[in-house]
Amino acid sequence: MENSYNECVKKSNDKDVSLQELRDRLAEFAEVRGWDQYHSPRNLLLALVGEVGELSEIFQWKGEVARGLPNWGSDDKEHLEEELSDVLLYLVRLADVCGLDLGRAALTKIVKNARKYPTGNKKSPT
Amino acid sequence: MENSYNECVKKSNDKDVSLQELRDRLAEFAEVRGWDQYHSPRNLLLALVGEVGELSEIFQWKGEVARGLPNWGSDDKEHLEEELSDVLLYLVRLADVCGLDLGRAALTKIVKNARKYPTGNKKSPT
Amino acid sequence: MENSYNECVKKSNDKDVSLQELRDRLAEFAEVRGWDQYHSPRNLLLALVGEVGELSEIFQWKGEVARGLPNWGSDDKEHLEEELSDVLLYLVRLADVCGLDLGRAALTKIVKNARKYPTGNKKSPT
Amino acid sequence: MENSYNECVKKSNDKDVSLQELRDRLAEFAEVRGWDQYHSPRNLLLALVGEVGELSEIFQWKGEVARGLPNWGSDDKEHLEEELSDVLLYLVRLADVCGLDLGRAALTKIVKNARKYPTGNKKSPT
Repeated sequence: MENSYNECVKKSNDKDVSLQELRDRLAEFAEVRGWDQYHSPRNLLLALVGEVGELSEIFQWKGEVARGLPNWGSDDKEHLEEELSDVLLYLVRLADVCGLDLGRAALTKIVKNARKYPTGNKKSPT
Repeated sequence: MENSYNECVKKSNDKDVSLQELRDRLAEFAEVRGWDQYHSPRNLLLALVGEVGELSEIFQWKGEVARGLPNWGSDDKEHLEEELSDVLLYLVRLADVCGLDLGRAALTKIVKNARKYPTGNKKSPT
Repeated sequence: MENSYNECVKKSNDKDVSLQELRDRLAEFAEVRGWDQYHSPRNLLLALVGEVGELSEIFQWKGEVARGLPNWGSDDKEHLEEELSDVLLYLVRLADVCGLDLGRAALTKIVKNARKYPTGNKKSPT
Repeated sequence: MENSYNECVKKSNDKDVSLQELRDRLAEFAEVRGWDQYHSPRNLLLALVGEVGELSEIFQWKGEVARGLPNWGSDDKEHLEEELSDVLLYLVRLADVCGLDLGRAALTKIVKNARKYPTGNKKSPT
């Protein structure tokens, strides 16, 4: 049992940040700042679009970019991490104010996609 | 110890899906279908923009939408869950092929935002 | 004939800026600055997405906005004009580097839409 | 004078479609279909984002695309013309319901950009 416990803790530590943790932190963040009044679904959606724009700006003049971002400096990578995070945070918040469970929905969508694109069928993504 | 184990499992179950789990599932999904060749950063970014477009289409003619989506049918909510998921999945995949840790980055961004917008300072978000 | 000439000039003056004029000015703008090398279709598309993001940011925390923008100050209106223009300019440039005639395409699309949504059929837009 | 008239007509024919013409056609299109009630600024903005998404989908799995779209079939080019047009039409309509003159704004922006990026200064666009 000791081992099971240790393994469970370890597995939990190995796990990345959960969507529920982000959701809860963002809900508290908005509440203590009195920002709930601004967080309507369409306000958050437009804020998300704004962040997708900033994400795109990072890539806009670069031509094709290789996986792993070789030749990118640490500042550029950090900037990219921030913009990816901003998109994620608004997405998590949008799902939350809509009353939807984003993590469960994402897993469901992966299962659905797996049925739609069976392995062995090597057609390109659509 | 039994209790600790049970609590750990419970806590783990309570936890939402982790970003690392999604990342790993998507990486496997792409690999077994031979899709890695399509998953360059800018291809994935444009696919993400495409999904943000589909998300926006759900909200486009609705005027202001209230939190919790009162009066939305279950079909509309399910459609919204799918589009939110599509955005999330491409975002997770984009971060992965860039070699970045999205979960850690998101937590870091929340901490940074908390410093930028201290509580007690009730100015509106920007 | 004098009158015809005057009417023609007047009509020409009444006319808004043409898409072809914008296209030509932007082509020259890029050429004299040596920017043609950056203006690949996907670079311009991502730049367009970036500008759509900036446009969205103007509207993101405002809740529903009435037609005509009552209560907006002249600075906000000018900012909006700039972001609308940025989207337009990248769109015109994107069409140009793709070798497409955006003005003709837009007129064709209006005709197609008119057939798709005949008048008298008062269903909502989709 | 005859020649002046002919030149004026020719120049007018040479001219691409004007933004004002598109604006007027779209205003009439919406009015006769009873769609003005749907055309609030934020509804139109989200519709624009939706169309930008469809535009991105055309380019999403293609990797870098060369200017002039060599190797694209006529169907793909026509599809692209339609999506570029959809973005343009919502942009023109959005400016109109906001009470702004898009063509004049675009020309003003080009002049402003010309001052911001003087020729001879061959730095890359930002």
